[in-house]
Amino acid sequence: MSAPIIAIDAMGGDFGPRNIVRASLACLTATPSLHLALVGQASLIEELIARHRGVDRSRLQIVQADEVIAMDERPSQALRSKPGSSMRVALELVADGKAQACVSAGNTGALMALSRFVLKTLPGIDRPAMIAAIPTRTGYCQLLDLGANVDCSADTLYQFAVMGAVMAETLGVTRPKVALLNIGTEDIKGNQQVKLAAGLLQAAPGLNYIGYVEGDGLYRGEADVVVCDGFVGNVLLKSSEGLASMIAARVEMLFGRNLLTRAVGALALPLLKRLQADLAPARHNGASLLGLQGIVVKSHGSASVEGFQSAIQRALIEVAQNQPERLRGRIEAMFQHGRT
Amino acid sequence: MSAPIIAIDAMGGDFGPRNIVRASLACLTATPSLHLALVGQASLIEELIARHRGVDRSRLQIVQADEVIAMDERPSQALRSKPGSSMRVALELVADGKAQACVSAGNTGALMALSRFVLKTLPGIDRPAMIAAIPTRTGYCQLLDLGANVDCSADTLYQFAVMGAVMAETLGVTRPKVALLNIGTEDIKGNQQVKLAAGLLQAAPGLNYIGYVEGDGLYRGEADVVVCDGFVGNVLLKSSEGLASMIAARVEMLFGRNLLTRAVGALALPLLKRLQADLAPARHNGASLLGLQGIVVKSHGSASVEGFQSAIQRALIEVAQNQPERLRGRIEAMFQHGRT
Repeated sequence: MSAPIIAIDAMGGDFGPRNIVRASLACLTATPSLHLALVGQASLIEELIARHRGVDRSRLQIVQADEVIAMDERPSQALRSKPGSSMRVALELVADGKAQACVSAGNTGALMALSRFVLKTLPGIDRPAMIAAIPTRTGYCQLLDLGANVDCSADTLYQFAVMGAVMAETLGVTRPKVALLNIGTEDIKGNQQVKLAAGLLQAAPGLNYIGYVEGDGLYRGEADVVVCDGFVGNVLLKSSEGLASMIAARVEMLFGRNLLTRAVGALALPLLKRLQADLAPARHNGASLLGLQGIVVKSHGSASVEGFQSAIQRALIEVAQNQPERLRGRIEAMFQHGRT
Repeated sequence: MSAPIIAIDAMGGDFGPRNIVRASLACLTATPSLHLALVGQASLIEELIARHRGVDRSRLQIVQADEVIAMDERPSQALRSKPGSSMRVALELVADGKAQACVSAGNTGALMALSRFVLKTLPGIDRPAMIAAIPTRTGYCQLLDLGANVDCSADTLYQFAVMGAVMAETLGVTRPKVALLNIGTEDIKGNQQVKLAAGLLQAAPGLNYIGYVEGDGLYRGEADVVVCDGFVGNVLLKSSEGLASMIAARVEMLFGRNLLTRAVGALALPLLKRLQADLAPARHNGASLLGLQGIVVKSHGSASVEGFQSAIQRALIEVAQNQPERLRGRIEAMFQHGRT
């Protein structure tokens, strides 16, 4: 794939197209092989582009979409009554082979529902999962699912483990350590789904399954991939974001106490901010939807320009590594070993 | 209750009786009205007491117990085959009215099972819950369940909400705001149990139910009491502990970089350590078992002397506030309003 085209849902997110257009143009400049398709209200997008100089229009197309899915719209409604939404048109570019990936900062539930409807899941995958990187003491861990699937059967957790391992490999980890998130490391701990999933994973061919990790083990870096249902994953991700920003606020307060500490605070603050961004990975870098016949990256609704750029970069890596085909190959190998 | 007696399981925890005896004697000195019953291997406890001076033996009794429950022992085994364990004998002192509360740093599962067997739950309560205080931007929030109950029905979550509210009141909060932990604040979000529990709580008399909070809302201090199943609560608590200690390590590293920052680091480190302790509340202050016909506080297995002291203090507050009777009264009031 010499010249990947990324379809950008220019209308999604809390701030409208302004940040998204800025981030897109910055990526276009930074990556000379990149082509973008900005999907949304064409006149508005043109107006925003006109504010920037030196835009290489030969690598930038604008695709008109008449409708916008609101951030609080029900997924079912978005699916039924808005065939011309920017999100859907962007996904259809991927389905039609006119783009190799879609990036959106829009309504998560709608993006999940539309992705599944437009792109379909890979054979053997029941439900797509949402995955993001969480910083740990030793590096990063891929956590899934982050909220797309509230209740998960053992079989779904098993599929997530396989998908997570492929994503870690896509991002450069060799023989990633895969673990199930649990409330203890002994065999007797956990709910029925987790215990059954553990049995499936122990028997899985070619997967480096290391057993259970607990919430603290995740941050100690015990695994490269941590699997849980979407309720648990979402709570873990959001509470971690909330805790990190509370700690950052307290440390800032601490630094503000006297002149000496204020001086050092000024030195340390950029590093603390970076830590905080690191600890809100989905907000900062985007999360991938996994298990689809196509690449979809979700940027946070309130992502900054840099955050949206990171999401485009993530999509580019997945395109370069051909993530869905890797996943398809892995799943087929599993099928041949007798798993359903 | 002028002279409360607290039964201490002296043999529980990762470090054996040494820390526990030290913490117990410190509490005895600090609280002149306190009486303690140290339960365990009497000769060993006597030996440890002999190392301390000025111990008021008139307020300290030693109760011999021949067996110890191991930290990795199965609860069912602890229940069946160790009738003479220090944990069980301490709980029996409470059941027999010879002590007003029990504090243990031992095996959590065994403590839950034995408490339920020896003390019984209050009428109307199906399962005891484990609760601890989590620091937030505005103060503290009581989080339950922390791992005692892996799967919870809507009715169990409802009971937890009532129990959590009573605990918050016991600790001094007027009309505590009660919320269900969820992965969104819209009505359509969440799993079936949470949605059903929301319906029950909306109709609950005398409960200040404010709806759903998310993981980040918890740390923003949106609620005084946050209710979830034990799997979710345990993951939230342990991942928060893991994240806080990871951040503390990074901040320390940051401070170590040059002479100036090292100097400030030395100033700030005690405050950072305190923050970290604050963020590991169950480890530091102990967690209460709620819904029993008696007061039981679980100190963390690897609690420090200060941590175990805090757990004894927590038990003392619950004794002074007559926690189980408050809870009984509240549950009866609910029954009269037609709930089952």
